[in-house]
Amino acid sequence: MIGSKVQVEMKGDQHILEGTLQSADDYLNLHLVDTTEIADGQRLRSLGSVVLRGNNIILIVPVEN
Amino acid sequence: MIGSKVQVEMKGDQHILEGTLQSADDYLNLHLVDTTEIADGQRLRSLGSVVLRGNNIILIVPVEN
Amino acid sequence: MIGSKVQVEMKGDQHILEGTLQSADDYLNLHLVDTTEIADGQRLRSLGSVVLRGNNIILIVPVEN
Amino acid sequence: MIGSKVQVEMKGDQHILEGTLQSADDYLNLHLVDTTEIADGQRLRSLGSVVLRGNNIILIVPVEN
Amino acid sequence: MIGSKVQVEMKGDQHILEGTLQSADDYLNLHLVDTTEIADGQRLRSLGSVVLRGNNIILIVPVEN
Amino acid sequence: MIGSKVQVEMKGDQHILEGTLQSADDYLNLHLVDTTEIADGQRLRSLGSVVLRGNNIILIVPVEN
Repeated sequence: MIGSKVQVEMKGDQHILEGTLQSADDYLNLHLVDTTEIADGQRLRSLGSVVLRGNNIILIVPVEN
Repeated sequence: MIGSKVQVEMKGDQHILEGTLQSADDYLNLHLVDTTEIADGQRLRSLGSVVLRGNNIILIVPVEN
Repeated sequence: MIGSKVQVEMKGDQHILEGTLQSADDYLNLHLVDTTEIADGQRLRSLGSVVLRGNNIILIVPVEN
Repeated sequence: MIGSKVQVEMKGDQHILEGTLQSADDYLNLHLVDTTEIADGQRLRSLGSVVLRGNNIILIVPVEN
Repeated sequence: MIGSKVQVEMKGDQHILEGTLQSADDYLNLHLVDTTEIADGQRLRSLGSVVLRGNNIILIVPVEN
Repeated sequence: MIGSKVQVEMKGDQHILEGTLQSADDYLNLHLVDTTEIADGQRLRSLGSVVLRGNNIILIVPVEN
């Protein structure tokens, strides 16, 4: 999935992040670029480059273009 | 259970996902296809291909046909 | 405890499962059969064969017959 | 602390267990005997022999006699 | 930081513990002595010797004298 | 990112910490200096030198100057 767009749901209050998957390591820590935070289907804010901690990821869904 | 239909309960607000188990790794990370999100017994939305983080899985139940 | 009846309390809203312990691995992932979900002391629903993720187990209590 | 009385606070709603520490493994999984569940300073119920999952332990306090 | 005073914030409802750091292992499990529980800036109760489970620590702050 | 300013979102009630990343280990435990706690976009209090437990980190965002 490297290079493609994904939505990642994190632990904590309904936290969804959408971005382009730059890299991933063995612990499923993810590096996303062009990341946007989404809440209730609305784009909340732009975060740019973000590191997501693997063990706090609930699920990863590829976004179709 | 590879190839069969399963329901997976995730951490976070009553999150249940039903799909066909494509693969699983040592950490119990699961790859489901034809995945549907279920809440209060209702099919909520189709997610297609989904990666579930093993350490946030509560339980896995095989679905009988 | 393999072969005997256990109650397992999971993370998430007061989730208790009672079943016969079929197997357990190094990570304390448990395979229960004849599993029943219990809430507020009431049998809620039968789940049959269930895999419980070890790191989301709070405690395990053997059930005496 | 093996053989001595301890109070263990677990994750989840204010869950405190008091018992005699029978054994502990590398993951801090604990086996308590003569275990009692405590809530709001009251003894709630006797659980007897209990296995506590290490990663869901918040803290362990030795009980002085 | 061994031998010095620290405040440790734990998972669960705003749980802060202040004590002298006696030892720490590879998993960041901490052994504190002369430990006090703090809530809303008030000293709540003395706990004496306490073992804190590393993976449930949120953050550690050294206390300046 | 060592030496640069980061915002780190932790598990627990909307906990955001901003500081200069001094060091990080294999478990993504972070050592921040000049750390400030932020809530609802307001600077809440100065914490100075802080150790953040890797497995309770949700996400890390570099702060642009």
